[in-house]
Amino acid sequence: MAESVLIVGTLALDDVETPFGRQDNIVGGAAYYSAIAASLFAPVNLVSIVGDDFPQQALARLADRGVDLAGVEIVEGGKSFHWAGRYEADMNTRETLDTQLNVLADFDPVLPASYRHSRYVFLANITPSLQLSVLDQMAGEAFVGCDTMNFWIETARDDLVKVLERVSLVLMNDAEVRQFADAPNLVRAAEQILSLGPEYVAIKMGEYGATLVSSDARFTLPCCPLPDVEDPTGAGDSFAGGLMGYLAWVNRTEEADLRVALALGTVTASHCCETFGTEALLETTPEEVYRRYEALRAMTYFNELPGDWCRALE
Amino acid sequence: MAESVLIVGTLALDDVETPFGRQDNIVGGAAYYSAIAASLFAPVNLVSIVGDDFPQQALARLADRGVDLAGVEIVEGGKSFHWAGRYEADMNTRETLDTQLNVLADFDPVLPASYRHSRYVFLANITPSLQLSVLDQMAGEAFVGCDTMNFWIETARDDLVKVLERVSLVLMNDAEVRQFADAPNLVRAAEQILSLGPEYVAIKMGEYGATLVSSDARFTLPCCPLPDVEDPTGAGDSFAGGLMGYLAWVNRTEEADLRVALALGTVTASHCCETFGTEALLETTPEEVYRRYEALRAMTYFNELPGDWCRALE
Repeated sequence: MAESVLIVGTLALDDVETPFGRQDNIVGGAAYYSAIAASLFAPVNLVSIVGDDFPQQALARLADRGVDLAGVEIVEGGKSFHWAGRYEADMNTRETLDTQLNVLADFDPVLPASYRHSRYVFLANITPSLQLSVLDQMAGEAFVGCDTMNFWIETARDDLVKVLERVSLVLMNDAEVRQFADAPNLVRAAEQILSLGPEYVAIKMGEYGATLVSSDARFTLPCCPLPDVEDPTGAGDSFAGGLMGYLAWVNRTEEADLRVALALGTVTASHCCETFGTEALLETTPEEVYRRYEALRAMTYFNELPGDWCRALE
Repeated sequence: MAESVLIVGTLALDDVETPFGRQDNIVGGAAYYSAIAASLFAPVNLVSIVGDDFPQQALARLADRGVDLAGVEIVEGGKSFHWAGRYEADMNTRETLDTQLNVLADFDPVLPASYRHSRYVFLANITPSLQLSVLDQMAGEAFVGCDTMNFWIETARDDLVKVLERVSLVLMNDAEVRQFADAPNLVRAAEQILSLGPEYVAIKMGEYGATLVSSDARFTLPCCPLPDVEDPTGAGDSFAGGLMGYLAWVNRTEEADLRVALALGTVTASHCCETFGTEALLETTPEEVYRRYEALRAMTYFNELPGDWCRALE
């Protein structure tokens, strides 16, 4: 029986410049990308905040996909969180040109009573103290995944450690894992993070794929090869959304389920990258998700060693 | 029936500095690393050149492993090729401190008659004109793999293109693929290289693993996770050697065989990185290779999507 997934994070209006063009006031934010990706798999309950400049149509689009908006506060006369950034030619490095917190400065996430028993929770990238506040409002057991960023690792490390102690899964990119653990070796860095409490670390490696690390296993898979990456904004959020959405749908969190979830997150992230904003992600279908998932399986399969080789060892 | 593999490349004495220490006059060179890795799988015929300062013991070690040295020229009174380099803390970037060609400056590889019908050939990283000279001496059909480097892409591109037109497999790292094709997108860059002639491009991505690209398929696998990388010198050569050695052993070059070969190359590269020089690579056993191969399979396996999901699509 599918569960719903609670997502807490930002809704935003972004200005994005990539080698393929520039678009202003793209509807985005970590919660927007992750809610759209998760809604491919499961019902979503969303907690966020926007100004009255946030397009009604974007909220309606979420509602149409089974996203409950009871937790989205709309501040009359307020302006939505705004981010502007530019990507270099290789799409792997980006520069933040502007950040305006606007209504996000006063964000104090309050969970509607019906959300507090959620069994699947994604704390998107927001201040760790707000992530803690959400955790304090939860009742009952939940599988909680959290995202973070370099800025919080630098400026709010103590709160972030408290978050890590209380979540099942942390999602970071490889640079953040190394930065958090102050260790260049990714194996050792991930071990340090696991020692703080999470059962799993999911390491996002951009075009090099993703890795899942637990105390007794490791799983790595590539990204979906894309000949045209138009805008990678939101890829990590789409990854997290697809991953958490699937876990809620299958309602199991064994390691084998996490592996499938990582692969589905990889697929939803690939859709995200194909166009500016969420256009391609909104248009994808379960059939296309299935097709890319099977392509990933074909891309990673290799045979056992031939029997002759094994016999030669005897 | 196992074939032998012909390897043409450098034998060297290296000074290497990593965060884990410094060692001088390490026996190395692309041909040394690749011959040791290949000899885990198949007999090797080696073509190279050294001065009389090259340790006899190192040559004896190769001979003990089934490496035929009839093609290795020893220049009396000459000094062996020398390379000195230093790795940064993250082990992904290295600085070349010194290169002394010495006897390599006059290297003019002459294939012993018995080598000319080799069906498996690895042209390690040397001047593309020398790689062409080797190809000119070959008789009959062969599966030829070649390596190269950024320096030849810059300074000997025309010759390198002629090499690519005549080989089955080219091995490059991801930066070299992008540099050669002048394209940041790895999918498009690899397509450009395939259009010149090779059936396969094997892209080495360091700690992010390796990818095999052909006109109709793609295969990606991670590296073996190592908590301690002492010295990555020779990892790419060990990768190529393991890969080519396995192909010679199995004596087939279907895509499924290349996939297994890439995984075995990944395993031999992992052994190479564990110690300075070839110490760990020399000591590994077929049993340990098998163990790491199976670990790679376990690390990359994920299930089909549950039947419920698929039924929901119908």
